[in-house]
Amino acid sequence: MDGGSRTVSRFVSFRTHDVRFPTSRTLDGSDAMNPDPDYSAAYLIVGTDAGDGLEGHGFAFTIGRGTEVQVAAINALAQYVVGCDVDAALADMGATARSFVDDSHLRWLGPEKGVMHMAISAVVNALWDLRAKRAGVPLWDLLSRMAPEEIVDLVDFRYLDDVMTPEQALEVLRRAEPGRAARRDQLLRSGYPAYTTTPGWLGYTDEKMIRLAEEAVAEGFGQIKLKVGGDLGDDIRRMRLARETVGPDIRIAIDANQRWGVGEAVRWIEALAPWSPWWVEEPTSPDEILGHATIRREVAPIKIATGEHVQNRIVFKQMLQAGSLDFVQIDAARVAGVNENIAILLLAAVFDVPVCPHAGGVGLCELVQHLAMFDLIAVSGTTDNRVIEYVDHLHEHFLSPAVVKDGRYAAPLDPGFSAQMRPETLQNYVFPEGSAWNVDE
Amino acid sequence: MDGGSRTVSRFVSFRTHDVRFPTSRTLDGSDAMNPDPDYSAAYLIVGTDAGDGLEGHGFAFTIGRGTEVQVAAINALAQYVVGCDVDAALADMGATARSFVDDSHLRWLGPEKGVMHMAISAVVNALWDLRAKRAGVPLWDLLSRMAPEEIVDLVDFRYLDDVMTPEQALEVLRRAEPGRAARRDQLLRSGYPAYTTTPGWLGYTDEKMIRLAEEAVAEGFGQIKLKVGGDLGDDIRRMRLARETVGPDIRIAIDANQRWGVGEAVRWIEALAPWSPWWVEEPTSPDEILGHATIRREVAPIKIATGEHVQNRIVFKQMLQAGSLDFVQIDAARVAGVNENIAILLLAAVFDVPVCPHAGGVGLCELVQHLAMFDLIAVSGTTDNRVIEYVDHLHEHFLSPAVVKDGRYAAPLDPGFSAQMRPETLQNYVFPEGSAWNVDE
Repeated sequence: MDGGSRTVSRFVSFRTHDVRFPTSRTLDGSDAMNPDPDYSAAYLIVGTDAGDGLEGHGFAFTIGRGTEVQVAAINALAQYVVGCDVDAALADMGATARSFVDDSHLRWLGPEKGVMHMAISAVVNALWDLRAKRAGVPLWDLLSRMAPEEIVDLVDFRYLDDVMTPEQALEVLRRAEPGRAARRDQLLRSGYPAYTTTPGWLGYTDEKMIRLAEEAVAEGFGQIKLKVGGDLGDDIRRMRLARETVGPDIRIAIDANQRWGVGEAVRWIEALAPWSPWWVEEPTSPDEILGHATIRREVAPIKIATGEHVQNRIVFKQMLQAGSLDFVQIDAARVAGVNENIAILLLAAVFDVPVCPHAGGVGLCELVQHLAMFDLIAVSGTTDNRVIEYVDHLHEHFLSPAVVKDGRYAAPLDPGFSAQMRPETLQNYVFPEGSAWNVDE
Repeated sequence: MDGGSRTVSRFVSFRTHDVRFPTSRTLDGSDAMNPDPDYSAAYLIVGTDAGDGLEGHGFAFTIGRGTEVQVAAINALAQYVVGCDVDAALADMGATARSFVDDSHLRWLGPEKGVMHMAISAVVNALWDLRAKRAGVPLWDLLSRMAPEEIVDLVDFRYLDDVMTPEQALEVLRRAEPGRAARRDQLLRSGYPAYTTTPGWLGYTDEKMIRLAEEAVAEGFGQIKLKVGGDLGDDIRRMRLARETVGPDIRIAIDANQRWGVGEAVRWIEALAPWSPWWVEEPTSPDEILGHATIRREVAPIKIATGEHVQNRIVFKQMLQAGSLDFVQIDAARVAGVNENIAILLLAAVFDVPVCPHAGGVGLCELVQHLAMFDLIAVSGTTDNRVIEYVDHLHEHFLSPAVVKDGRYAAPLDPGFSAQMRPETLQNYVFPEGSAWNVDE
């Protein structure tokens, strides 16, 4: 196997882990729909026989119970990876990603949505992590050095071509090409704007919220976010306190986490309007293309943001067509990974709608920063009205944690997708055997 | 346990089975997106300590690989069933179904879509099967004897109330109430109209298609369906042959199984228009609310049908709002079971759009007939332009197989939801240990 005639390296391992963090104990991450999440990851490590010691890491983000289902779904994709030619699979990531999405048996379990789609995300992202590590560069840099034609080849245009053909996507990318180098330099110097959700969890006391909001402003954030949607009286009080705390110039986004129906959303938002919310996030179901459009019309000029639970590029496309949103909130690990997110970044550029990624959870900040930075350099070419969410939880579990300073994400420099958890984390937080789940309370 | 003081019976068992049928060997079920399905079921049996020997059976329909993921998702719901009070859970099936949908951790894996939602379908349907068996009546009869108020209590109106409030749903049901008894008698006498897809699988030769189409007409079907979307030349030839075979008065539906983008759909349908397709089914992605509406406008008066892969009531609602379809094709096991299908039947009634259920697969005919018959008696009050799909495969595996005679479904009379597979089927087709998967070929 290791003799001179060996030319092809293959994927030889595909290991999954059910990793859960007991975040419900402190109400970090609590919102109107998710009162007690235990941030979790269905985590994947892909190994090869290349002998270079490099592995690809990826995961689907979950919030506790059911992570074992997500792990089972990732395992169902092992047959499409193990045994494959590593160089060939990584060189044509468009075809590789489509081989997962197009498996007709697995497609029946979606199609292109839910558990099976998030599993594809984990695998696709793990392969991109490996490709970037082999290239010795961070993923954002790898992607934003690719030729427009190569980038277009990554995208599955099925169900998109009524609003974006490959030629139109190519045009977007070519338009951004001349400025790439200058924007890369600027990114390395000054980073990418962030906003923080750390103050706003619904389970926090007013005092804790105020203290964290003050800290956020002191740290240089120009935008914070509050969770709303539990009780209107509480929301009015918290919104007023937050506005008094941060003053008129800091943007306060609010996030209902899908809590409302259409009419209820409009009434609730209008009640909070006196304190000038910058955007309202997930006012209703992520499946509500028409509902979001109605709410947006009714509450203008307050803006609408959504996307962390939008299942795929097909729904994002229609939200852009229908005028459902002012901000596209991509999530790194819900749609089918890097490839589908590139499709969504291109769609947003065609419609000239800013992308403000969803992050937080565990590892989502680490992942999604790469996509926003790629967007800046190679797609939209701007950070105008664009911010990446930041939440200050659980970064210590990663080998290359996201770094936010003065309210901005620093461009990650380590090779890969920043997806790799520390080995001791995988050991201590594995559910239910890990030491974190076997403490006396 | 069985003494005189015992008053509460509990769910004590929750057994899942990965059951697969090797249908790909004969190309039964082959279409443009699914060339080689192995019809499968993630199958559930729920047992109690009531001592009456009755169990609830339910399943999610899958097509082979990945059924183990679906089984894992059903298992994730065991904790909400085992140990619960049987009478209380079955008496308030609205609250019971919502307890599954509203679990915030599991909801993150959808929300309300894909593997996790289909798992809820299996559990909800198994509980309805048990409730109908305990009542000693077929499910259609149980449902259509319920008071309008009870039926409305089964529905989750979240995300629906911008187009249908509980009051409006109640009005629909009350309007249908006076004619219930007469329609029940009529149903028992003459059954419910069916159409057949048996002739139309894409993998069949022209000769087999023609022979089966002739048989369908001879058997009394007024509508057949052909799979299309593989190759336009083939589709034109098959459509022409089918029309020549059945003559001008038999309706020929065509089914693209999501194969096309919007523009391609319009061009393809126009090429087949000379042979007067009655409806075009799944011309594009089931997520395409706007795309279906565009196609429908462009190809009118040819009609559009979709729904077997529509993930939930929220998407159906929008399709009705947007004018995306002429026929609502509910599936018994993709949305969250009986309860969510009642919501969809009510929505369709509010918009006055006929419901023509999807069936076939394994067990879908058995299940969905109950919903269509309930619709006839208690909701829409009519069979005008309504037909239930019928496919003549795999019925022999059920204790109470669907019976179609003279092109009509006979109302099932056995107690329950007709969901129960024969014990020897569960034994022989369990994957991968069953004898059906261990034959010398």
